[in-house]
Amino acid sequence: MHPTFEIPITLEPGQGREPGQALYRQLREAIAAGRLVRDTKLPATRDAKPLFGVSRNTLAAVYERLISEGYAVGRHGSGTYVAWTAPAPAPERRPRDEARDDARLNPFWLSEPVAAAMNFWRDPQDAADRAVIDMRPGLVDLGLFPFDVFRSVAGKQLRKMERGTAASRSPQGNRGNFRLREAITAHVSLARAVACSPDDVLVTSGAQQAFDLIARVLVTPGRTVVAVEDPGYPPMRVPFAAAGAQVVPVPVDGEGLVVDALPRSASVICLCPSHQYPLGVTMSKARREQLIRFARANGATIVEDDYDGEFRWGDTPVDALRTLDHSDVVIYVGTFSKCMFPSLRLGYLIAPAWASKALVAAKNCMDWHCPVPMQTTVAEFIAQGHLRRHVRKMRAAYHKRQRLLLDSLRQDFAGVLHPIESQYGMHLSATVDDSVDVDAIAAAMQRGGVNVHTLSRYFLGAPTHRGLVFGYGSVGLAQIRKMLSVMAAASPRRQRLA
Amino acid sequence: MHPTFEIPITLEPGQGREPGQALYRQLREAIAAGRLVRDTKLPATRDAKPLFGVSRNTLAAVYERLISEGYAVGRHGSGTYVAWTAPAPAPERRPRDEARDDARLNPFWLSEPVAAAMNFWRDPQDAADRAVIDMRPGLVDLGLFPFDVFRSVAGKQLRKMERGTAASRSPQGNRGNFRLREAITAHVSLARAVACSPDDVLVTSGAQQAFDLIARVLVTPGRTVVAVEDPGYPPMRVPFAAAGAQVVPVPVDGEGLVVDALPRSASVICLCPSHQYPLGVTMSKARREQLIRFARANGATIVEDDYDGEFRWGDTPVDALRTLDHSDVVIYVGTFSKCMFPSLRLGYLIAPAWASKALVAAKNCMDWHCPVPMQTTVAEFIAQGHLRRHVRKMRAAYHKRQRLLLDSLRQDFAGVLHPIESQYGMHLSATVDDSVDVDAIAAAMQRGGVNVHTLSRYFLGAPTHRGLVFGYGSVGLAQIRKMLSVMAAASPRRQRLA
Repeated sequence: MHPTFEIPITLEPGQGREPGQALYRQLREAIAAGRLVRDTKLPATRDAKPLFGVSRNTLAAVYERLISEGYAVGRHGSGTYVAWTAPAPAPERRPRDEARDDARLNPFWLSEPVAAAMNFWRDPQDAADRAVIDMRPGLVDLGLFPFDVFRSVAGKQLRKMERGTAASRSPQGNRGNFRLREAITAHVSLARAVACSPDDVLVTSGAQQAFDLIARVLVTPGRTVVAVEDPGYPPMRVPFAAAGAQVVPVPVDGEGLVVDALPRSASVICLCPSHQYPLGVTMSKARREQLIRFARANGATIVEDDYDGEFRWGDTPVDALRTLDHSDVVIYVGTFSKCMFPSLRLGYLIAPAWASKALVAAKNCMDWHCPVPMQTTVAEFIAQGHLRRHVRKMRAAYHKRQRLLLDSLRQDFAGVLHPIESQYGMHLSATVDDSVDVDAIAAAMQRGGVNVHTLSRYFLGAPTHRGLVFGYGSVGLAQIRKMLSVMAAASPRRQRLA
Repeated sequence: MHPTFEIPITLEPGQGREPGQALYRQLREAIAAGRLVRDTKLPATRDAKPLFGVSRNTLAAVYERLISEGYAVGRHGSGTYVAWTAPAPAPERRPRDEARDDARLNPFWLSEPVAAAMNFWRDPQDAADRAVIDMRPGLVDLGLFPFDVFRSVAGKQLRKMERGTAASRSPQGNRGNFRLREAITAHVSLARAVACSPDDVLVTSGAQQAFDLIARVLVTPGRTVVAVEDPGYPPMRVPFAAAGAQVVPVPVDGEGLVVDALPRSASVICLCPSHQYPLGVTMSKARREQLIRFARANGATIVEDDYDGEFRWGDTPVDALRTLDHSDVVIYVGTFSKCMFPSLRLGYLIAPAWASKALVAAKNCMDWHCPVPMQTTVAEFIAQGHLRRHVRKMRAAYHKRQRLLLDSLRQDFAGVLHPIESQYGMHLSATVDDSVDVDAIAAAMQRGGVNVHTLSRYFLGAPTHRGLVFGYGSVGLAQIRKMLSVMAAASPRRQRLA
């Protein structure tokens, strides 16, 4: 049998003249770090050659040294054993001084609201080992994504890099790969009637980085007021707060953000006009015009988060806020997390010309650019029409899921849940009557294996709506039916039903 | 012939009941954005079906509407033509008010030093259309990277995502993919004798994001003093300045950072102890101990940038500063940009336990995590031993290139250039005598087709060294010889030569 050893030890030719030295170091570090635990038998010196490529004498000398330093011990007639117990848990030399250590840190990142917002997606209850029906919004069905096509496109792009035709020297452009920006331009033109040129596009690591980037260039610490929809998407608020802005919640009604409630001092206004997150209302035409007037009159900038604008099945498309006419005051944020998959970490923003230089400088400072293999693959995936096909397929799938959900809420939960209708996307919200204890319903559903959000976690200020958010991005029709029956069991008697 | 049309128009089934409406919008946007320019002939209505899948009447109605709105014009007996000229250059409705627009922005990103630092890699002269020998440090030879292996590993990882075995639900962990963190732990243990556990590792979008992340958690605006080596890597200074730190240059001598010159108020100290960037000196043992003492006595944190630590060919490896004994005060930053390739955008940091919570919160805020397909591919690439093999190959290649360069500098440029020897990496620096006009040499080399940096651009304070930096990451032996002959022609007569 070929002898084996649990710790990978590699002796490089460059260390050729003193292989024992390298072997000694690696063994010592493995022992010191606790990867080789106390009482582990070290390999016999007769296996020195096949295991480590060193002579028997060399290995014996290494053991001598480890023994002399107390890391190992020789047991007569039996061999050499690890004699060291790595300090547990953290192998730090000095006792931890918590107050002193915390003082090294910017306290912002240790604050409770920040931790809560950034843990938005990580509930203790959605441990991977529990078979839950996961109704959190924002998840997508990886099983429906054409990975075979994606893989073949990715392979071709890597082959291009190999051949050098992806020109390592060519200006990658810190806005992002030019072909991807071209593809995004075509995509938003077709899907969202947003007209722009590739030079207006900046590729980001998902929408989250777009928010962070925008926050860093638009916020002057201690001076800037940022208005956000309430309810809204909590992780979006953190970059603005981190940049030193005052983040102010603004209410939402059936027509979208209540523009009359905007503070005059707001110089950045963040919202989802197409499909409010999480309520689902679409901003009315009158409100849109009012908002643009407000922004122009006050020198404010609008950040339009269009996270699922591709998935609309109504007959009359609703334009994005960032049409050609509003390109001076709107920064549009799009993402491939919903229409492709989230772990791609690709998104983009479309910005007015005046913000361009600052945005590129900030993106450079943050990480230069997104990974080229991902960018070129997505560019080609879009250019070949695969994204369009996938969006069409998913739009139909989401439409079916929403219809099942809506029909059931109307028939079986009338008087308890009041769905907020929309013609978009991957989630649906429903409010409840005052008499209904929505937290108890959610908790009971949780016990029944269904992970569902209440609206309360989306508020920054005092909640104005109570209800549930049903994300159907990663659940099929059968799972939705199962969820509905769990919810029926968890809900109060439906008095208004016959 | 199948009729074609230059602008991609897609009619989705979801828009089925009113296909004319979607077609109208897309044509209007294409015209408004200038993608269909004035006097372009629009397709004949008889091609309505094959081109757009709509009836002839529908297309005629669309044209009517475009004509009524002034976007198109009908020419009798000839067809329909675009009648709109898109406003040039930026299609913005309002005249640009530069002062007002700049006032929207955080002025930091518009400042000249920031622009200069972030344009560090982008010289006007290295336009892609000029055949230059590019001696900038930090470039790598894509031609030597095993893309075939990488592609096959990537394909297998994408297949796993497709099969769902990459568990969309499993905690990706916002420190980065667990298998990648495990692989990094093994990599730094073998290559750098750094002992840590996967929980100490956080995966970043290259070293640049690691600096940004560290800056955001360690800097409290207006209070924190950050010491940086001078000369040093300019783009590393920007995130610290952006976070609101005072960035202070500290000189470097033959033993590395001059610890005696550190201001007492420095609470963050950034340096490259293994291979100073760009000088190339290795920090002495005495200085290392002095630095650790300083940090512990003053509550300061050391940021160790180990950008090319894998590429050392000396017999006795020099430990990283972040050994087990110093894990309480050192944050280690590593990158795959040098040992794999830069456009991967993957790096990592290894942090003390006390910084962990803040770092994870900040990484979440910045972009949640790096792309999963890239992370799992690199994890597997390392686990299968490909990185180790590639590093071994490149180490030998770099060693040869450095030897050629060193030998020639010593023989043919004695008395003009004084190379700073090192046993590391992908670049070599050389100082010049006071009498030599190094800028003139660099400019003459530029004219001869060689892109080479002078040391001056690496300084934040007053330059203490004058000379040239020779990066040989992306140039072979033949190109180095060519560069040397161009440099010989550009250099003053070498008086000391016989």
